Amino acid sequence: MKNSLLKNLTKIKARKIENSFLIEGFSLIETALKSKRLLLNHLIVTDRIFSRYQGFINGIGNEKIFFVTEEIIKKLSFTKTPQGIIASVTYNSSTLDSIDFKTIPLLLIIDGISDPGNLGSLIRTAEVFGVDALIILPDSCDVFSDKVIRASAGSLFHLPIIFCGYDEIIKYLNTKGFYNIITVPSDGCEIWRFNFNSPLAITLGNESRGISKPMMNSSVYRLTIPIKGNADSLNVAVAGSIILYEIAKQRNLLKCGK
Amino acid sequence: MKNSLLKNLTKIKARKIENSFLIEGFSLIETALKSKRLLLNHLIVTDRIFSRYQGFINGIGNEKIFFVTEEIIKKLSFTKTPQGIIASVTYNSSTLDSIDFKTIPLLLIIDGISDPGNLGSLIRTAEVFGVDALIILPDSCDVFSDKVIRASAGSLFHLPIIFCGYDEIIKYLNTKGFYNIITVPSDGCEIWRFNFNSPLAITLGNESRGISKPMMNSSVYRLTIPIKGNADSLNVAVAGSIILYEIAKQRNLLKCGK
Repeated sequence: MKNSLLKNLTKIKARKIENSFLIEGFSLIETALKSKRLLLNHLIVTDRIFSRYQGFINGIGNEKIFFVTEEIIKKLSFTKTPQGIIASVTYNSSTLDSIDFKTIPLLLIIDGISDPGNLGSLIRTAEVFGVDALIILPDSCDVFSDKVIRASAGSLFHLPIIFCGYDEIIKYLNTKGFYNIITVPSDGCEIWRFNFNSPLAITLGNESRGISKPMMNSSVYRLTIPIKGNADSLNVAVAGSIILYEIAKQRNLLKCGK
Repeated sequence: MKNSLLKNLTKIKARKIENSFLIEGFSLIETALKSKRLLLNHLIVTDRIFSRYQGFINGIGNEKIFFVTEEIIKKLSFTKTPQGIIASVTYNSSTLDSIDFKTIPLLLIIDGISDPGNLGSLIRTAEVFGVDALIILPDSCDVFSDKVIRASAGSLFHLPIIFCGYDEIIKYLNTKGFYNIITVPSDGCEIWRFNFNSPLAITLGNESRGISKPMMNSSVYRLTIPIKGNADSLNVAVAGSIILYEIAKQRNLLKCGK
Protein backbone atom coordinates (compact mmCIF):
# COMPACT_ATOMS: atom_id res chain seq x y z
CA MET A 1 0.00 0.00 0.00
CA LYS A 2 1.28 3.44 -0.93
CA ASN A 3 2.12 5.84 1.83
CA SER A 4 -0.19 8.48 0.39
CA LEU A 5 -3.17 6.10 0.58
CA LEU A 6 -2.38 5.13 4.16
CA LYS A 7 -2.16 8.82 5.07
CA ASN A 8 -5.50 9.44 3.40
CA LEU A 9 -7.14 6.52 5.23
CA THR A 10 -5.74 7.72 8.54
CA LYS A 11 -7.33 11.11 7.90
CA ILE A 12 -10.61 9.40 7.06
CA LYS A 13 -10.38 7.32 10.24
CA ALA A 14 -9.96 10.58 12.20
CA ARG A 15 -13.02 11.97 10.30
CA LYS A 16 -11.03 14.82 8.82
CA ILE A 17 -12.57 14.46 5.35
CA GLU A 18 -16.22 15.46 5.24
CA ASN A 19 -18.71 12.62 4.68
CA SER A 20 -15.92 10.04 4.34
CA PHE A 21 -15.47 7.37 6.99
CA LEU A 22 -14.28 3.84 7.65
CA ILE A 23 -16.52 0.83 8.20
CA GLU A 24 -15.05 -2.21 9.91
CA GLY A 25 -16.12 -5.84 9.79
CA PHE A 26 -17.68 -7.99 7.11
CA SER A 27 -21.35 -7.85 8.01
CA LEU A 28 -21.49 -4.05 8.39
CA ILE A 29 -19.58 -3.58 5.14
CA GLU A 30 -21.90 -5.98 3.31
CA THR A 31 -24.93 -4.01 4.56
CA ALA A 32 -23.30 -0.68 3.73
CA LEU A 33 -22.47 -1.58 0.13
CA LYS A 34 -26.13 -2.28 -0.59
CA SER A 35 -26.93 1.35 0.21
CA LYS A 36 -27.33 3.70 -2.75
CA ARG A 37 -26.08 6.54 -0.61
CA LEU A 38 -22.59 5.12 -0.05
CA LEU A 39 -19.71 5.15 -2.49
CA LEU A 40 -16.96 2.62 -1.84
CA ASN A 41 -13.51 4.13 -2.20
CA HIS A 42 -11.27 1.33 -0.97
CA LEU A 43 -11.62 -2.11 0.55
CA ILE A 44 -8.68 -2.94 2.80
CA VAL A 45 -8.21 -6.63 3.60
CA THR A 46 -5.60 -8.96 5.05
CA ASP A 47 -4.60 -12.21 3.33
CA ARG A 48 -6.04 -14.02 6.32
CA ILE A 49 -9.54 -12.64 5.68
CA PHE A 50 -9.42 -12.98 1.89
CA SER A 51 -9.88 -16.75 1.82
CA ARG A 52 -12.94 -16.42 4.05
CA TYR A 53 -14.77 -13.79 2.00
CA GLN A 54 -13.25 -14.51 -1.41
CA GLY A 55 -16.60 -14.53 -3.24
CA PHE A 56 -17.65 -11.19 -1.78
CA ILE A 57 -14.27 -9.53 -2.33
CA ASN A 58 -13.97 -10.77 -5.91
CA GLY A 59 -17.32 -9.13 -6.69
CA ILE A 60 -15.74 -5.73 -6.05
CA GLY A 61 -13.66 -3.90 -8.66
CA ASN A 62 -10.01 -4.95 -8.45
CA GLU A 63 -8.76 -1.39 -8.41
CA LYS A 64 -10.54 -0.76 -5.11
CA ILE A 65 -9.08 -3.70 -3.19
CA PHE A 66 -5.87 -3.37 -1.20
CA PHE A 67 -4.16 -6.22 0.58
CA VAL A 68 -2.36 -5.11 3.70
CA THR A 69 -0.41 -6.55 6.61
CA GLU A 70 -1.92 -7.20 10.03
CA GLU A 71 0.14 -4.26 11.23
CA ILE A 72 -1.56 -1.80 8.88
CA ILE A 73 -5.02 -3.19 9.61
CA LYS A 74 -4.28 -2.61 13.30
CA LYS A 75 -3.47 1.03 12.57
CA LEU A 76 -6.75 1.55 10.75
CA SER A 77 -8.90 -0.58 13.05
CA PHE A 78 -11.14 0.67 15.88
CA THR A 79 -10.90 -2.61 17.78
CA LYS A 80 -8.17 -4.45 19.66
CA THR A 81 -8.55 -7.62 17.63
CA PRO A 82 -9.36 -6.49 14.08
CA GLN A 83 -11.41 -8.79 11.88
CA GLY A 84 -9.12 -7.87 8.97
CA ILE A 85 -11.55 -6.08 6.66
CA ILE A 86 -12.18 -2.33 6.50
CA ALA A 87 -13.97 -0.22 3.89
CA SER A 88 -13.37 3.44 3.19
CA VAL A 89 -16.59 5.04 1.93
CA THR A 90 -18.11 8.42 1.11
CA TYR A 91 -21.68 9.27 2.05
CA ASN A 92 -23.87 11.17 -0.36
CA SER A 93 -26.01 13.31 1.99
CA SER A 94 -29.69 13.68 1.24
CA THR A 95 -31.63 16.95 1.11
CA LEU A 96 -35.00 17.77 2.60
CA ASP A 97 -36.58 17.94 -0.86
CA SER A 98 -35.44 14.46 -1.83
CA ILE A 99 -37.10 12.55 1.04
CA ASP A 100 -39.22 9.69 -0.26
CA PHE A 101 -42.20 9.45 2.10
CA LYS A 102 -43.96 6.10 1.96
CA THR A 103 -47.10 6.64 4.04
CA ILE A 104 -47.81 9.42 6.54
CA PRO A 105 -44.47 11.26 6.91
CA LEU A 106 -42.38 10.74 10.03
CA LEU A 107 -39.10 12.60 10.64
CA LEU A 108 -36.74 12.14 13.57
CA ILE A 109 -34.78 15.28 14.43
CA ILE A 110 -31.53 14.87 16.38
CA ASP A 111 -31.08 18.14 18.24
CA GLY A 112 -27.68 17.89 19.92
CA ILE A 113 -27.54 14.29 21.16
CA SER A 114 -23.96 13.84 22.34
CA ASP A 115 -23.59 10.15 23.21
CA PRO A 116 -22.75 7.95 20.19
CA GLY A 117 -24.38 4.91 21.82
CA ASN A 118 -27.64 6.83 22.24
CA LEU A 119 -27.56 8.14 18.67
CA GLY A 120 -26.74 4.74 17.17
CA SER A 121 -29.43 3.01 19.20
CA LEU A 122 -32.00 5.63 18.11
CA ILE A 123 -31.08 5.20 14.44
CA ARG A 124 -31.60 1.44 14.80
CA THR A 125 -35.00 2.00 16.39
CA ALA A 126 -35.92 4.64 13.81
CA GLU A 127 -35.54 2.10 11.02
CA VAL A 128 -37.50 -0.56 12.91
CA PHE A 129 -40.46 1.76 13.49
CA GLY A 130 -40.59 3.34 10.03
CA VAL A 131 -38.96 6.77 10.30
CA ASP A 132 -38.59 8.23 6.77
CA ALA A 133 -35.46 10.30 7.35
CA LEU A 134 -33.09 11.45 10.06
CA ILE A 135 -32.40 15.17 10.46
CA ILE A 136 -29.13 16.04 12.19
CA LEU A 137 -29.01 19.52 13.73
CA PRO A 138 -25.85 21.37 14.88
CA ASP A 139 -23.96 20.21 18.02
CA SER A 140 -25.00 16.57 17.61
CA CYS A 141 -22.26 13.96 17.86
CA ASP A 142 -20.58 12.64 14.71
CA VAL A 143 -23.11 10.37 13.01
CA PHE A 144 -20.36 8.63 11.01
CA SER A 145 -18.17 7.70 14.00
CA ASP A 146 -17.40 4.03 14.52
CA LYS A 147 -19.43 3.91 17.75
CA VAL A 148 -22.59 5.26 16.10
CA ILE A 149 -22.21 2.91 13.13
CA ARG A 150 -21.85 -0.10 15.44
CA ALA A 151 -24.71 0.89 17.73
CA SER A 152 -26.97 1.47 14.72
CA ALA A 153 -26.29 -2.11 13.58
CA GLY A 154 -26.29 -1.05 9.95
CA SER A 155 -29.54 0.97 10.08
CA LEU A 156 -27.46 4.09 9.45
CA PHE A 157 -27.01 2.90 5.87
CA HIS A 158 -30.72 2.34 5.26
CA LEU A 159 -32.04 5.72 6.38
CA PRO A 160 -31.62 9.02 4.52
CA ILE A 161 -29.57 11.41 6.67
CA ILE A 162 -29.92 15.15 6.25
CA PHE A 163 -27.64 17.71 7.89
CA CYS A 164 -29.62 20.86 8.55
CA GLY A 165 -29.57 24.24 10.25
CA TYR A 166 -32.36 25.31 12.64
CA ASP A 167 -33.88 27.87 10.26
CA GLU A 168 -33.93 25.45 7.34
CA ILE A 169 -35.73 22.66 9.18
CA ILE A 170 -38.19 24.96 10.95
CA LYS A 171 -39.14 26.61 7.67
CA TYR A 172 -39.51 23.21 6.02
CA LEU A 173 -41.77 21.84 8.78
CA ASN A 174 -43.98 24.92 8.70
CA THR A 175 -44.26 25.00 4.91
CA LYS A 176 -45.04 21.30 4.60
CA GLY A 177 -47.58 21.24 7.42
CA PHE A 178 -45.70 18.96 9.82
CA TYR A 179 -46.66 18.62 13.48
CA ASN A 180 -43.44 19.84 15.15
CA ILE A 181 -43.30 17.81 18.36
CA ILE A 182 -40.88 17.90 21.30
CA THR A 183 -40.92 15.74 24.41
CA VAL A 184 -40.80 17.19 27.89
CA PRO A 185 -40.17 15.34 31.18
CA SER A 186 -43.53 16.36 32.63
CA ASP A 187 -46.87 18.08 31.99
CA GLY A 188 -46.97 17.45 28.23
CA CYS A 189 -49.75 15.45 26.56
CA GLU A 190 -49.58 11.75 27.52
CA ILE A 191 -48.07 10.08 24.48
CA TRP A 192 -50.90 7.56 24.06
CA ARG A 193 -53.54 10.32 23.89
CA PHE A 194 -51.96 12.20 20.99
CA ASN A 195 -53.31 11.67 17.48
CA PHE A 196 -50.32 10.67 15.37
CA ASN A 197 -52.13 10.47 12.02
CA SER A 198 -50.61 13.64 10.55
CA PRO A 199 -47.13 14.31 9.16
CA LEU A 200 -44.88 14.31 12.25
CA ALA A 201 -41.43 15.56 13.20
CA ILE A 202 -40.18 14.36 16.59
CA THR A 203 -37.29 16.35 18.06
CA LEU A 204 -35.00 14.75 20.66
CA GLY A 205 -32.57 16.95 22.56
CA ASN A 206 -29.21 16.79 24.27
CA GLU A 207 -28.72 14.44 27.25
CA SER A 208 -28.16 17.28 29.70
CA ARG A 209 -29.12 20.57 28.00
CA GLY A 210 -32.33 19.18 26.47
CA ILE A 211 -33.97 20.70 23.38
CA SER A 212 -32.27 23.74 21.77
CA LYS A 213 -33.91 27.17 21.98
CA PRO A 214 -34.80 27.44 18.27
CA MET A 215 -36.55 24.04 18.28
CA MET A 216 -38.20 24.72 21.63
CA ASN A 217 -39.58 28.05 20.41
CA SER A 218 -40.79 26.71 17.08
CA SER A 219 -42.61 23.72 18.51
CA VAL A 220 -46.29 23.81 19.43
CA TYR A 221 -46.81 20.24 20.63
CA ARG A 222 -45.31 18.90 23.85
CA LEU A 223 -45.50 15.22 24.68
CA THR A 224 -44.63 13.44 27.91
CA ILE A 225 -44.00 9.78 28.60
CA PRO A 226 -45.73 9.30 31.93
CA ILE A 227 -43.66 7.55 34.58
CA LYS A 228 -44.27 5.82 37.87
CA GLY A 229 -43.95 7.62 41.18
CA ASN A 230 -40.89 9.71 41.97
CA ALA A 231 -38.44 8.11 39.57
CA ASP A 232 -36.20 10.30 37.47
CA SER A 233 -36.43 10.78 33.72
CA LEU A 234 -35.65 8.31 30.94
CA ASN A 235 -32.52 8.09 28.82
CA VAL A 236 -33.04 9.97 25.53
CA ALA A 237 -32.62 6.84 23.36
CA VAL A 238 -35.20 5.00 25.45
CA ALA A 239 -37.64 7.92 25.48
CA GLY A 240 -37.32 8.41 21.73
CA SER A 241 -37.79 4.70 21.11
CA ILE A 242 -40.96 4.53 23.18
CA ILE A 243 -42.44 7.46 21.27
CA LEU A 244 -41.54 5.98 17.87
CA TYR A 245 -43.09 2.69 19.03
CA GLU A 246 -46.34 4.42 20.07
CA ILE A 247 -46.54 6.25 16.74
CA ALA A 248 -45.98 3.11 14.66
CA LYS A 249 -48.47 1.20 16.81
CA GLN A 250 -51.18 3.86 16.51
CA ARG A 251 -50.61 4.08 12.76
CA ASN A 252 -51.08 0.29 12.49
CA LEU A 253 -47.67 -0.21 10.90
CA LEU A 254 -46.47 -3.00 13.17
CA LYS A 255 -46.52 -6.65 12.29
CA CYS A 256 -45.54 -9.72 14.25
CA GLY A 257 -43.62 -12.45 12.43
CA LYS A 258 -42.00 -12.27 9.01
CA MET B 1 -3.12 8.75 52.61
CA LYS B 2 -1.54 5.49 53.69
CA ASN B 3 -0.11 3.24 51.01
CA SER B 4 -2.19 0.31 52.21
CA LEU B 5 -5.42 2.30 51.75
CA LEU B 6 -4.41 3.42 48.25
CA LYS B 7 -3.65 -0.20 47.36
CA ASN B 8 -7.01 -1.25 48.69
CA LEU B 9 -8.83 1.46 46.72
CA THR B 10 -6.97 0.50 43.56
CA LYS B 11 -8.16 -3.08 44.05
CA ILE B 12 -11.70 -1.81 44.55
CA LYS B 13 -11.43 0.32 41.40
CA ALA B 14 -10.39 -2.82 39.49
CA ARG B 15 -13.42 -4.60 41.06
CA LYS B 16 -11.24 -7.19 42.74
CA ILE B 17 -13.13 -7.07 46.03
CA GLU B 18 -16.60 -8.54 45.78
CA ASN B 19 -19.48 -6.06 46.09
CA SER B 20 -17.10 -3.14 46.71
CA PHE B 21 -16.75 -0.42 44.13
CA LEU B 22 -15.98 3.26 43.60
CA ILE B 23 -18.51 5.96 42.81
CA GLU B 24 -17.29 9.19 41.27
CA GLY B 25 -18.84 12.63 41.26
CA PHE B 26 -20.92 14.54 43.79
CA SER B 27 -24.44 13.93 42.51
CA LEU B 28 -24.04 10.16 42.12
CA ILE B 29 -22.41 9.90 45.56
CA GLU B 30 -25.19 11.96 47.13
CA THR B 31 -27.82 9.63 45.59
CA ALA B 32 -25.85 6.53 46.58
CA LEU B 33 -25.51 7.49 50.24
CA LYS B 34 -29.28 7.69 50.59
CA SER B 35 -29.52 4.00 49.73
CA LYS B 36 -29.90 1.58 52.62
CA ARG B 37 -28.07 -1.05 50.62
CA LEU B 38 -24.77 0.81 50.42
CA LEU B 39 -22.16 1.12 53.15
CA LEU B 40 -19.72 3.99 52.77
CA ASN B 41 -16.14 2.92 53.48
CA HIS B 42 -14.17 6.00 52.49
CA LEU B 43 -14.81 9.39 50.94
CA ILE B 44 -11.80 10.61 48.98
CA VAL B 45 -11.73 14.34 48.25
CA THR B 46 -9.32 17.00 47.07
CA ASP B 47 -8.89 20.31 48.87
CA ARG B 48 -10.26 21.99 45.75
CA ILE B 49 -13.60 20.16 46.04
CA PHE B 50 -13.90 20.45 49.83
CA SER B 51 -14.85 24.12 49.84
CA ARG B 52 -17.62 23.45 47.31
CA TYR B 53 -19.28 20.55 49.16
CA GLN B 54 -18.23 21.44 52.71
CA GLY B 55 -21.72 20.98 54.16
CA PHE B 56 -22.16 17.56 52.65
CA ILE B 57 -18.67 16.35 53.53
CA ASN B 58 -18.90 17.58 57.13
CA GLY B 59 -22.05 15.50 57.54
CA ILE B 60 -20.00 12.35 57.10
CA GLY B 61 -17.97 10.75 59.90
CA ASN B 62 -14.47 12.27 60.06
CA GLU B 63 -12.78 8.90 60.17
CA LYS B 64 -14.13 8.10 56.68
CA ILE B 65 -12.88 11.22 54.92
CA PHE B 66 -9.47 11.33 53.29
CA PHE B 67 -7.98 14.40 51.67
CA VAL B 68 -5.75 13.56 48.74
CA THR B 69 -3.72 15.28 46.04
CA GLU B 70 -4.96 15.77 42.47
CA GLU B 71 -2.43 13.13 41.47
CA ILE B 72 -4.03 10.45 43.64
CA ILE B 73 -7.55 11.41 42.56
CA LYS B 74 -6.38 10.97 38.97
CA LYS B 75 -5.19 7.46 39.78
CA LEU B 76 -8.54 6.51 41.26
CA SER B 77 -10.71 8.37 38.75
CA PHE B 78 -12.47 6.88 35.71
CA THR B 79 -12.48 10.20 33.86
CA LYS B 80 -9.85 12.38 32.25
CA THR B 81 -10.83 15.46 34.21
CA PRO B 82 -11.81 14.19 37.68
CA GLN B 83 -14.35 16.18 39.66
CA GLY B 84 -12.27 15.54 42.80
CA ILE B 85 -14.66 13.41 44.86
CA ILE B 86 -14.80 9.62 44.96
CA ALA B 87 -16.56 7.27 47.38
CA SER B 88 -15.57 3.72 48.14
CA VAL B 89 -18.65 1.69 49.05
CA THR B 90 -19.79 -1.86 49.73
CA TYR B 91 -23.10 -3.15 48.43
CA ASN B 92 -25.24 -5.33 50.62
CA SER B 93 -26.81 -7.71 48.08
CA SER B 94 -30.47 -8.57 48.48
CA THR B 95 -31.95 -12.06 48.43
CA LEU B 96 -35.02 -13.32 46.62
CA ASP B 97 -36.88 -13.73 49.89
CA SER B 98 -36.32 -10.15 50.97
CA ILE B 99 -37.93 -8.45 47.95
CA ASP B 100 -40.55 -5.92 49.01
CA PHE B 101 -43.29 -6.05 46.36
CA LYS B 102 -45.49 -2.96 46.32
CA THR B 103 -48.31 -3.90 43.96
CA ILE B 104 -48.39 -6.74 41.39
CA PRO B 105 -44.81 -8.12 41.37
CA LEU B 106 -42.52 -7.27 38.46
CA LEU B 107 -38.98 -8.65 38.19
CA LEU B 108 -36.42 -7.84 35.51
CA ILE B 109 -33.99 -10.70 34.86
CA ILE B 110 -30.67 -9.82 33.23
CA ASP B 111 -29.58 -12.98 31.44
CA GLY B 112 -26.11 -12.27 30.10
CA ILE B 113 -26.33 -8.68 28.87
CA SER B 114 -22.75 -7.73 28.04
CA ASP B 115 -22.80 -4.03 27.18
CA PRO B 116 -22.57 -1.74 30.25
CA GLY B 117 -24.43 1.06 28.46
CA ASN B 118 -27.35 -1.27 27.74
CA LEU B 119 -27.43 -2.59 31.30
CA GLY B 120 -27.23 0.88 32.85
CA SER B 121 -29.92 2.24 30.58
CA LEU B 122 -32.20 -0.71 31.42
CA ILE B 123 -31.71 -0.19 35.15
CA ARG B 124 -32.70 3.47 34.74
CA THR B 125 -35.83 2.46 32.81
CA ALA B 126 -36.61 -0.30 35.31
CA GLU B 127 -36.85 2.24 38.10
CA VAL B 128 -38.96 4.63 36.02
CA PHE B 129 -41.52 1.93 35.18
CA GLY B 130 -41.78 0.31 38.61
CA VAL B 131 -39.66 -2.86 38.53
CA ASP B 132 -39.44 -4.30 42.07
CA ALA B 133 -36.01 -5.92 41.82
CA LEU B 134 -33.26 -6.71 39.35
CA ILE B 135 -32.05 -10.29 39.05
CA ILE B 136 -28.52 -10.71 37.65
CA LEU B 137 -27.80 -14.12 36.13
CA PRO B 138 -24.32 -15.53 35.30
CA ASP B 139 -22.32 -14.10 32.36
CA SER B 140 -23.88 -10.64 32.64
CA CYS B 141 -21.50 -7.67 32.65
CA ASP B 142 -20.31 -6.16 35.94
CA VAL B 143 -23.28 -4.28 37.39
CA PHE B 144 -20.99 -2.21 39.64
CA SER B 145 -18.68 -0.98 36.88
CA ASP B 146 -18.35 2.76 36.42
CA LYS B 147 -20.07 2.68 33.02
CA VAL B 148 -23.16 0.89 34.34
CA ILE B 149 -23.38 3.24 37.33
CA ARG B 150 -23.20 6.30 35.05
CA ALA B 151 -25.68 4.96 32.49
CA SER B 152 -28.12 4.04 35.26
CA ALA B 153 -28.05 7.68 36.44
CA GLY B 154 -28.26 6.61 40.07
CA SER B 155 -31.17 4.17 39.64
CA LEU B 156 -28.77 1.35 40.47
CA PHE B 157 -28.83 2.55 44.06
CA HIS B 158 -32.62 2.59 44.31
CA LEU B 159 -33.37 -0.93 43.09
CA PRO B 160 -32.69 -4.16 45.00
CA ILE B 161 -30.12 -6.24 43.07
CA ILE B 162 -30.01 -9.99 43.47
CA PHE B 163 -27.26 -12.21 42.08
CA CYS B 164 -28.71 -15.58 41.24
CA GLY B 165 -28.05 -18.90 39.54
CA TYR B 166 -30.41 -20.31 36.92
CA ASP B 167 -31.79 -23.08 39.14
CA GLU B 168 -32.44 -20.73 42.03
CA ILE B 169 -34.43 -18.18 40.02
CA ILE B 170 -36.37 -20.79 38.03
CA LYS B 171 -37.39 -22.59 41.20
CA TYR B 172 -38.37 -19.28 42.79
CA LEU B 173 -40.52 -18.20 39.82
CA ASN B 174 -42.28 -21.57 39.69
CA THR B 175 -42.92 -21.72 43.43
CA LYS B 176 -44.22 -18.17 43.66
CA GLY B 177 -46.47 -18.42 40.60
CA PHE B 178 -44.68 -15.87 38.40
CA TYR B 179 -45.32 -15.63 34.65
CA ASN B 180 -41.83 -16.39 33.33
CA ILE B 181 -41.65 -14.33 30.12
CA ILE B 182 -38.97 -14.07 27.44
CA THR B 183 -39.00 -11.92 24.34
CA VAL B 184 -38.35 -13.32 20.89
CA PRO B 185 -37.69 -11.35 17.65
CA SER B 186 -40.72 -12.82 15.88
CA ASP B 187 -43.84 -14.99 16.23
CA GLY B 188 -44.39 -14.41 19.94
CA CYS B 189 -47.55 -12.82 21.35
CA GLU B 190 -47.78 -9.12 20.37
CA ILE B 191 -46.83 -7.28 23.55
CA TRP B 192 -50.01 -5.17 23.68
CA ARG B 193 -52.24 -8.27 23.61
CA PHE B 194 -50.70 -9.96 26.66
CA ASN B 195 -52.45 -9.64 30.00
CA PHE B 196 -49.83 -8.24 32.39
CA ASN B 197 -51.98 -8.32 35.54
CA SER B 198 -50.18 -11.25 37.17
CA PRO B 199 -46.79 -11.46 38.89
CA LEU B 200 -44.29 -11.14 36.04
CA ALA B 201 -40.62 -11.89 35.44
CA ILE B 202 -39.23 -10.49 32.17
CA THR B 203 -35.96 -12.05 31.01
CA LEU B 204 -33.67 -10.13 28.64
CA GLY B 205 -30.81 -11.98 26.98
CA ASN B 206 -27.35 -11.35 25.61
CA GLU B 207 -26.89 -8.92 22.68
CA SER B 208 -25.73 -11.65 20.30
CA ARG B 209 -26.40 -15.04 21.94
CA GLY B 210 -29.89 -14.11 23.14
CA ILE B 211 -31.59 -15.89 26.06
CA SER B 212 -29.66 -18.67 27.84
CA LYS B 213 -30.80 -22.28 27.48
CA PRO B 214 -31.99 -22.71 31.09
CA MET B 215 -34.18 -19.58 30.89
CA MET B 216 -35.39 -20.44 27.39
CA ASN B 217 -36.40 -23.95 28.50
CA SER B 218 -38.08 -22.81 31.70
CA SER B 219 -40.16 -20.09 30.09
CA VAL B 220 -43.68 -20.69 28.81
CA TYR B 221 -44.56 -17.20 27.54
CA ARG B 222 -42.95 -15.64 24.47
CA LEU B 223 -43.58 -12.01 23.61
CA THR B 224 -42.66 -10.11 20.46
CA ILE B 225 -42.47 -6.39 19.83
CA PRO B 226 -43.93 -6.14 16.34
CA ILE B 227 -41.85 -4.12 13.90
CA LYS B 228 -42.38 -2.49 10.53
CA GLY B 229 -41.45 -4.19 7.28
CA ASN B 230 -38.09 -5.84 6.84
CA ALA B 231 -36.16 -3.94 9.46
CA ASP B 232 -33.87 -5.81 11.78
CA SER B 233 -34.39 -6.34 15.50
CA LEU B 234 -34.21 -3.79 18.32
CA ASN B 235 -31.36 -3.14 20.72
CA VAL B 236 -31.94 -5.08 23.96
CA ALA B 237 -32.15 -1.95 26.14
CA VAL B 238 -34.75 -0.46 23.79
CA ALA B 239 -36.75 -3.70 23.54
CA GLY B 240 -36.72 -4.16 27.32
CA SER B 241 -37.75 -0.55 27.87
CA ILE B 242 -40.71 -0.79 25.49
CA ILE B 243 -41.95 -3.92 27.27
CA LEU B 244 -41.58 -2.35 30.72
CA TYR B 245 -43.46 0.69 29.41
CA GLU B 246 -46.34 -1.45 28.06
CA ILE B 247 -46.59 -3.33 31.37
CA ALA B 248 -46.68 -0.15 33.46
CA LYS B 249 -49.19 1.42 31.07
CA GLN B 250 -51.51 -1.61 31.13
CA ARG B 251 -51.29 -1.78 34.91
CA ASN B 252 -52.29 1.91 35.11
CA LEU B 253 -49.16 2.86 37.01
CA LEU B 254 -48.11 5.81 34.86
CA LYS B 255 -48.76 9.40 35.72
CA CYS B 256 -48.03 12.60 33.84
CA GLY B 257 -46.65 15.55 35.76
CA LYS B 258 -45.41 15.56 39.35
